[in-house]
Amino acid sequence: MNAPPGNDTFLRALRREPVPYTPVWLMRQAGRYLPEYRATRARAGSFLAMAKTPELACEVTLQPLARFPLDAAILFSDILTVPDAMGLGLYFAEGEGPRFERTVRSMADVEALGTPDMETELRYVMDAVRLIRRELAGKVPLIGFSGSPWTLACYMVEGGGSENFARIKAMALEAPATLHALLRRVTDAVIAYLDAQRLAGAQALQVFDTWGGVLAPHLYREFSLPYLVEIAQRLPRGEGAAKAPLILFGKGNGPYLEELAASGAEALGIDWTVALGEARRRTGGRVALQGNLDPATLYAPPAVIAREAARALDDYAAANGGAREGHVFNLGHGMSPDMAPEHVAALVEAVHAHRGR
Amino acid sequence: MNAPPGNDTFLRALRREPVPYTPVWLMRQAGRYLPEYRATRARAGSFLAMAKTPELACEVTLQPLARFPLDAAILFSDILTVPDAMGLGLYFAEGEGPRFERTVRSMADVEALGTPDMETELRYVMDAVRLIRRELAGKVPLIGFSGSPWTLACYMVEGGGSENFARIKAMALEAPATLHALLRRVTDAVIAYLDAQRLAGAQALQVFDTWGGVLAPHLYREFSLPYLVEIAQRLPRGEGAAKAPLILFGKGNGPYLEELAASGAEALGIDWTVALGEARRRTGGRVALQGNLDPATLYAPPAVIAREAARALDDYAAANGGAREGHVFNLGHGMSPDMAPEHVAALVEAVHAHRGR
Repeated sequence: MNAPPGNDTFLRALRREPVPYTPVWLMRQAGRYLPEYRATRARAGSFLAMAKTPELACEVTLQPLARFPLDAAILFSDILTVPDAMGLGLYFAEGEGPRFERTVRSMADVEALGTPDMETELRYVMDAVRLIRRELAGKVPLIGFSGSPWTLACYMVEGGGSENFARIKAMALEAPATLHALLRRVTDAVIAYLDAQRLAGAQALQVFDTWGGVLAPHLYREFSLPYLVEIAQRLPRGEGAAKAPLILFGKGNGPYLEELAASGAEALGIDWTVALGEARRRTGGRVALQGNLDPATLYAPPAVIAREAARALDDYAAANGGAREGHVFNLGHGMSPDMAPEHVAALVEAVHAHRGR
Repeated sequence: MNAPPGNDTFLRALRREPVPYTPVWLMRQAGRYLPEYRATRARAGSFLAMAKTPELACEVTLQPLARFPLDAAILFSDILTVPDAMGLGLYFAEGEGPRFERTVRSMADVEALGTPDMETELRYVMDAVRLIRRELAGKVPLIGFSGSPWTLACYMVEGGGSENFARIKAMALEAPATLHALLRRVTDAVIAYLDAQRLAGAQALQVFDTWGGVLAPHLYREFSLPYLVEIAQRLPRGEGAAKAPLILFGKGNGPYLEELAASGAEALGIDWTVALGEARRRTGGRVALQGNLDPATLYAPPAVIAREAARALDDYAAANGGAREGHVFNLGHGMSPDMAPEHVAALVEAVHAHRGR
């Protein structure tokens, strides 16, 4: 099960080893922009039913790989599976985002949280990982993932998505001990969750700190960064060829690249508001970098997409002594439902074809 | 009319002259969080009727000053008055944001744009400025403002607010000449608009580049920054005591502070994702700084608001050789309708009371 995959460019890039071309995958590559995804979603009846049924999660995970020569698969799941398994009751109101039946607003709420068992409450995730690995048959590596402690706490305190994060920011300022207690519980669960995904077969692990960038610097350094560092320090990765690198992605993490590069993570995922060359210079080659085309670039015609991809690739290589190694091409954030599959094909082809400087 | 105001701490801080305390005003200080604003809005019948009636615009401009000892007033208006006057037909759909009847998608659309006359189509703005100056009677200075060329173009191309700026970003990439032609027309109109506001009595001028931060760096430097620099270079400010300083505010402008400080503007407004001390160090005292408390801080209790305000004030002063001059306290973005007026009172009081290190 842990034999090296046929196409290991993704893992080699994360290890900063030479690669024949820059590998590419796209955040939310399995999603509503694909008609076959919408068909599976319709059959499943709901997003959650799809995410919680290993056969369906496997099916949609593999869909983009059947269309595009992507260099990695990412588990189809939701970042809120962990808080759901801690007892908050995840649901999706039609036409709205995710919601929780219960929220966390007090120390009593924190203490009432369950410690999820990875092979009972979250067994559907591990079963999906095992099934996807089997179906992938070594073709490309499989990425497991989790939300970051801060990002999960945002949903747990707000009760769902938020425009301004009023409740969790007020908690950070007036009840920091409560928030730290919550983040402690969530961090332990995230580490157990990622470790279980690796043991089930995930070959790389990504943490999505989607909302770290909404914090002022002194609060980011108190409530988001330390828990990312703790994950990087404590999370087992395995040994040798089976070692699963950790990627810390953060929207708005541009100001903190130096600190994140010193966390112990193998790679950083960055959004499109920092140039890749600048990110490479600031991180000094201590980590691999993943990113960072503005997803909106996919609304432009294929020739323009190819030009912008080349710009990002060249910007990285120029700052990396002319070498492509240490870079995994990706978007700076997830794809949107109104994007054209043909444009994704053009992007993947452009990245693979761009082998010169 | 241009006699120095009674309380000129705001203008002195922008000139980086000594001040007895750090002056404070708040973006969107006239707004729905005030019951008296909601009453005027109800009487006016619509937001646009309120903005386009000088007496009502004056009334809501002065409302927060009657409650709080703010150190500046800002003209109540909308950033979309200029595109409206260029012929796009601004309206507000109930419960939604601003919309335009016509959009700009082609060079023909750009060429069809009108050149607004400041004393006909935009006379209601200049009349409001004149009336507010008269009513203020020199108590505090009046700030005039405009949207930035890039930010106005976002609304003109998208036809209203946008989640992902798909259309204007595609235009930037595939039809840059069209977008530059649009930005040229808008920049000329913005300069004329700000100049007319100054001549009507505005004593400082702020440009809101609300959406510059959604661009990748190479596109920010092509489509937003040069037009901000052009405004800073070309906009007349007047002379001597009547000189009206220019403040460039930008959400997400953190990566570009050095470039903005070299633009020729007198001050930069920054959001809360950059620490004030770091901003002061990076701009080297070449400009005054305005900001930058996270607006969500206003959801916390008064004692916490005071603590966070003190942190920002001390962070600036520590990087400024211990002096408060050159800093105008503000939020890092606008206020929200669900904020408590009592918390605003606590913030203003805390800023004024914080005279030590």
